[in-house]
Amino acid sequence: MDLNADLGEGFGRWTLTEDEALLTCVTSANVACGFHAGDASVMRRVCDTAAERGVRIGAQVSYRDLAGFGRRAMDVPAAELTAEIAYQIGALRVFAEAAGSTVSYVKPHGALYNRVVHDEEQAAAVVAGVLLAGGRPAVLGLPGSRLLAHAEAAGLTSVEEAFADRAYTPRGTLVPRGEAGAVVHDADEVVRRSVGMAVDGAVTGVDGSRIAVTARSLCVHGDTPGAAALALRVRTALEEAGVSVRAFA
Amino acid sequence: MDLNADLGEGFGRWTLTEDEALLTCVTSANVACGFHAGDASVMRRVCDTAAERGVRIGAQVSYRDLAGFGRRAMDVPAAELTAEIAYQIGALRVFAEAAGSTVSYVKPHGALYNRVVHDEEQAAAVVAGVLLAGGRPAVLGLPGSRLLAHAEAAGLTSVEEAFADRAYTPRGTLVPRGEAGAVVHDADEVVRRSVGMAVDGAVTGVDGSRIAVTARSLCVHGDTPGAAALALRVRTALEEAGVSVRAFA
Amino acid sequence: MDLNADLGEGFGRWTLTEDEALLTCVTSANVACGFHAGDASVMRRVCDTAAERGVRIGAQVSYRDLAGFGRRAMDVPAAELTAEIAYQIGALRVFAEAAGSTVSYVKPHGALYNRVVHDEEQAAAVVAGVLLAGGRPAVLGLPGSRLLAHAEAAGLTSVEEAFADRAYTPRGTLVPRGEAGAVVHDADEVVRRSVGMAVDGAVTGVDGSRIAVTARSLCVHGDTPGAAALALRVRTALEEAGVSVRAFA
Amino acid sequence: MDLNADLGEGFGRWTLTEDEALLTCVTSANVACGFHAGDASVMRRVCDTAAERGVRIGAQVSYRDLAGFGRRAMDVPAAELTAEIAYQIGALRVFAEAAGSTVSYVKPHGALYNRVVHDEEQAAAVVAGVLLAGGRPAVLGLPGSRLLAHAEAAGLTSVEEAFADRAYTPRGTLVPRGEAGAVVHDADEVVRRSVGMAVDGAVTGVDGSRIAVTARSLCVHGDTPGAAALALRVRTALEEAGVSVRAFA
Repeated sequence: MDLNADLGEGFGRWTLTEDEALLTCVTSANVACGFHAGDASVMRRVCDTAAERGVRIGAQVSYRDLAGFGRRAMDVPAAELTAEIAYQIGALRVFAEAAGSTVSYVKPHGALYNRVVHDEEQAAAVVAGVLLAGGRPAVLGLPGSRLLAHAEAAGLTSVEEAFADRAYTPRGTLVPRGEAGAVVHDADEVVRRSVGMAVDGAVTGVDGSRIAVTARSLCVHGDTPGAAALALRVRTALEEAGVSVRAFA
Repeated sequence: MDLNADLGEGFGRWTLTEDEALLTCVTSANVACGFHAGDASVMRRVCDTAAERGVRIGAQVSYRDLAGFGRRAMDVPAAELTAEIAYQIGALRVFAEAAGSTVSYVKPHGALYNRVVHDEEQAAAVVAGVLLAGGRPAVLGLPGSRLLAHAEAAGLTSVEEAFADRAYTPRGTLVPRGEAGAVVHDADEVVRRSVGMAVDGAVTGVDGSRIAVTARSLCVHGDTPGAAALALRVRTALEEAGVSVRAFA
Repeated sequence: MDLNADLGEGFGRWTLTEDEALLTCVTSANVACGFHAGDASVMRRVCDTAAERGVRIGAQVSYRDLAGFGRRAMDVPAAELTAEIAYQIGALRVFAEAAGSTVSYVKPHGALYNRVVHDEEQAAAVVAGVLLAGGRPAVLGLPGSRLLAHAEAAGLTSVEEAFADRAYTPRGTLVPRGEAGAVVHDADEVVRRSVGMAVDGAVTGVDGSRIAVTARSLCVHGDTPGAAALALRVRTALEEAGVSVRAFA
Repeated sequence: MDLNADLGEGFGRWTLTEDEALLTCVTSANVACGFHAGDASVMRRVCDTAAERGVRIGAQVSYRDLAGFGRRAMDVPAAELTAEIAYQIGALRVFAEAAGSTVSYVKPHGALYNRVVHDEEQAAAVVAGVLLAGGRPAVLGLPGSRLLAHAEAAGLTSVEEAFADRAYTPRGTLVPRGEAGAVVHDADEVVRRSVGMAVDGAVTGVDGSRIAVTARSLCVHGDTPGAAALALRVRTALEEAGVSVRAFA
């Protein structure tokens, strides 16, 4: 099982994610590329540390929206979105390669992540941007999303991810943020669910039903207080349960 | 003699440089990378056209200053500046490579261009950014500038440029903008000076003295009305004078 | 009949609208406030000229989106949108008042303009921002829009506007941009429709039917080539037809 | 003695200053206006809380530089700077007035603060912006600065401020950041110096000499860990020493 987290989400004077600590326990780093967060200095620093520790580097691409942290859906025309995705990947690649690594996957952020679950046009535009950027990185996303369908159709590696701290509906989709119980706040419960997903390939849905989880990557959040400590607990529990924690192939 | 021009200096809804027309006559395109001008869509379009026409692509890197068009000197700490330069080159490289070309040189823009003539720290920081970005592109700048000295010290190809529409002091430096006569507005005179620089390796200084010009590249401005028509006249005159107009080696 | 145009839509080095020329013939200036276009210097200049010529000043408020020129719909939460609207009005008011005038109305721009036709939450949020900014300016918008309904419910003056260069459906709504015939490009036709709207209170719809137009303000576009010349023709034709062209009461 | 602190220096998803806690002990709030930090929502919230608690509101104006947090000196032409200062004051005024308060003073931030100590042109441009914005707010700055000289020449109230956590040279200027001992990190020492400045009108310089301090306002920093706790200690110590802590007249 791969463990991924959003990293490098500071900007200029501001910090957010516990980059140093998280890079000691995750296996894949979703690095912000400057559109919702992340400036060139932060990107460089995170890539250097990730490469040094053998953590895989991915481009966490976003709408261009610093003020809204990429959390506001935007009707960006497909051609613009494609170019913006490629721009972000290219900028990050410089720092990944300077550190002796590479951008090996792409994961959309925030509102774009949610939009490309269903939005055919934007999903296709994101994948077109990934192809334009070259290097054929993998694409990380929600199982069943249009994003992953387009990635597969383009011959890219698609990687499904699961969320240990999010509630699942009986159909296996995420309970939307904003609804009661959407986020699991209890750390013990998050750890239990992580192990269940990795070992049993299943998690308990909001209605008590058993939901099959086929994810190859588990997302731990980086921008909540105590994120690094929780991520470390998840990793330790997975390893104690005999799960090999390493970047996806 | 190489002919270079600043291109892709639109942003979103705004246009500025006559990209299409200039790409029919220049041999090197200094493409804005999003920090003073240029968005991902413009960058893509200019790279596509440049590659199609065999025009060399360079990164026109700048301070991060859209509101000031990169024309306001900024005291950016060296490490930040280095990372920002690399970021811009990486973003542009994606579009250059997708078009089948590459970023083969780097030229600072506006206030940064002027600053690295004398500023040791920023000149070194820019060259560090060029090295960080990899690929060892050439560096284009003012003869005698600290920028070119640092580029050479780093083993990069340095390319001196001259300006057909700028007045020169007896010492061979540019008369600062703002001073009377700094810019040559008469088109015939610009054409004559261009030919003189290329054929005789000299231009007449503000005091009437003969100034030696060793530049391998001639900059024609892209953001003035009639820029493309003037660039075409310069090119035609150079060719009629037997000068081979092509990108620097 | 009032004639309004979008003005001050340059930014830094970029220009777009023919501000000087348009301010000789319109009666209301929708001044961009820095979120989709317009910087502080442009805002100041347009306000100074508008005040000098007795042209009414309005705040053309927008989503925060320079790269997209405010033309991309955004899911901005209501509280954020309200604060952003107030911020823009406040910034403009400084320049209007320094010029001896005031911000006497507010008109949303681009994607926000279209969104508040139907979007209850954003329409309410915009009106809340107008109220927060104080001074009780009028609100300019599409007849039948949720925006005008909320403005009226808040006791603000609502002003309906019509578009001389846009096609109308039989129901009196605009034919969406992107559909064939949405924009009337023929200048003579634009002039004829303007006079028809002002004198007869009607315009011919796309199906040939007669559409009643009750607008008190007519929008002429400022960001198209020849905008100022066309606006002047419209104004002259209206006056020759006996229509009094002046700012709405 | 007045106690001022920089507040509202978050942006979008990012937070920095302990606004809530600091607003329980300072008497003047220097509110960021969106150019180096602060978005419309943060500005509104800080103004609401400040007004509710009777804390005076000031505009903390800055160069336009989110990425550099306004800490990078910029060669902004005077006319642009003047307009940008007015824009920021106007935007903040809307929130101050909506909260039943007003923008009663202006204090430059970061690199602009340092620049207008000596830079005649930018100092004059800032004061011109303050005048343009109307309302004749006071101007807060370093004793002996060109800023305060220009403010006085314009008939504005000038308010000198001192820094309890900064070392002073024998001439009464601040030891530049970056030099050893420039910042006093020991909390007890900061408290002692604050009381000495307020009660004795003096502080000990880096060379051990006695420096006269005539400041009417004392700046406590808001963006360091424990800023609010330290500010509260300073206030308590001042009051115990019989100093009346209240906003300047």
